[in-house]
Amino acid sequence: MVSNQISFLKSLQQKKHRKAHGLFLVEGPKSVADFLQSDFYTIKTVFHTPQSESKMLKVSGNIKFQEVSAAGLEKISSLNTPQEMIALVEIPDRQKINLKTLTGFTLMLDGVQDPGNLGTIIRTADWFGIRQIICSEDTVDAYNPKVVQATMGSLSRINVYYTDLLFLLPQIKQPVFGAMLDGDNIFQTDFGTEGIILLGNEGNGIRPEIQPLIHKKITIPRLGQAESLNVAMAATVFCAEISRAKLMQKQV
Amino acid sequence: MVSNQISFLKSLQQKKHRKAHGLFLVEGPKSVADFLQSDFYTIKTVFHTPQSESKMLKVSGNIKFQEVSAAGLEKISSLNTPQEMIALVEIPDRQKINLKTLTGFTLMLDGVQDPGNLGTIIRTADWFGIRQIICSEDTVDAYNPKVVQATMGSLSRINVYYTDLLFLLPQIKQPVFGAMLDGDNIFQTDFGTEGIILLGNEGNGIRPEIQPLIHKKITIPRLGQAESLNVAMAATVFCAEISRAKLMQKQV
Repeated sequence: MVSNQISFLKSLQQKKHRKAHGLFLVEGPKSVADFLQSDFYTIKTVFHTPQSESKMLKVSGNIKFQEVSAAGLEKISSLNTPQEMIALVEIPDRQKINLKTLTGFTLMLDGVQDPGNLGTIIRTADWFGIRQIICSEDTVDAYNPKVVQATMGSLSRINVYYTDLLFLLPQIKQPVFGAMLDGDNIFQTDFGTEGIILLGNEGNGIRPEIQPLIHKKITIPRLGQAESLNVAMAATVFCAEISRAKLMQKQV
Repeated sequence: MVSNQISFLKSLQQKKHRKAHGLFLVEGPKSVADFLQSDFYTIKTVFHTPQSESKMLKVSGNIKFQEVSAAGLEKISSLNTPQEMIALVEIPDRQKINLKTLTGFTLMLDGVQDPGNLGTIIRTADWFGIRQIICSEDTVDAYNPKVVQATMGSLSRINVYYTDLLFLLPQIKQPVFGAMLDGDNIFQTDFGTEGIILLGNEGNGIRPEIQPLIHKKITIPRLGQAESLNVAMAATVFCAEISRAKLMQKQV
């Protein structure tokens, strides 16, 4: 692996370079396998150590495989314990959200900053079968290596959009449920069959200018004394409640 | 602040030194304030910068306050962005669990390894009013600086015990619910009014030798495709379900 290539791949740890090239990295054989099967993503190249050849999937198409030394991979990796496989993946072009494709439930994030939180939210959405996440432009980049890692491959199955929420929200016909501290009890809320679940920034919640666009404020009741609930935990409670309702409807 | 004191306080970032001295550190004015009000913890000393004096609480008792320079605090801190206050706190003596005090619901963790996960679980328990967490001896130490930080002060309100689960579980009279992949649907489970919620290690789940001690296996249904749900997310769904049941009972 030539040093030019190494510095190019390493540069993708920074958002400005990912944006400029429309590319990001996925590390580890399990996650790479998930992206190889993705409907949304195109892998350009898989870099792998000679030892990991047996783990490689036989795939057709335009994917290049390039054998590199463990030391080479280590130079590109963002992990403390680099894995034996890294894929170079195209960032999908998602400038415009087709509102007609927004069916069922969608998570919407206003200014979530922590990569671990966004990664966990993507993984949780994938567990509960939610396929779209719409983020404000100041939400942490989903192609940040820490986010990609925390999703454990789930990013390959979730559409993540970045857009101006103030512009988008008025166009949405579905009910918009906002996670707030002064809303209705989530356990007594009928979410119906579709809607937007809007969650805010870790410290400040949903921005004041967005709040009037919420149709229904929802609160996760606090029975103890913690000052707040982590945003990824809040997202999990919403996803679980929606799943509960979906499963109960099926039974009826 | 003398260098002896700095190296002593810094040494508490390691478990063996925390164990030897029965002491740990709490960083940041908000968390220190929570520990000052705690029923379970005794603060020995609060180290603070001259600038943070206005944030100090007037407290009586045997707590010492020691003014130190920002540079001194930075040397002790485990944070990238050190805060202006650090408290030296005694680890409570919790060798024996009094089974009679186990009322309501208790979380039990078998081998949770990630400090962020344990911290988030403690914070979530505190939100939902669960006050005891019992951990296997190989679960990450709750007094690890990363755990303390992730709890955002909630550790001050939660009893965390470490014990041999194989020895303890047979003595417990309450129902033991285990989070497993092949159990009953959590959304159709009647948790009653008390019980143990047992969650396992991030990669391997609950140890096979513990599993026969579970009374009821419970599963969070998967509607999507993620391979697994993060253990802190699973804990959150359990806590939310128990809260839902508690709130519904109150209504009846």
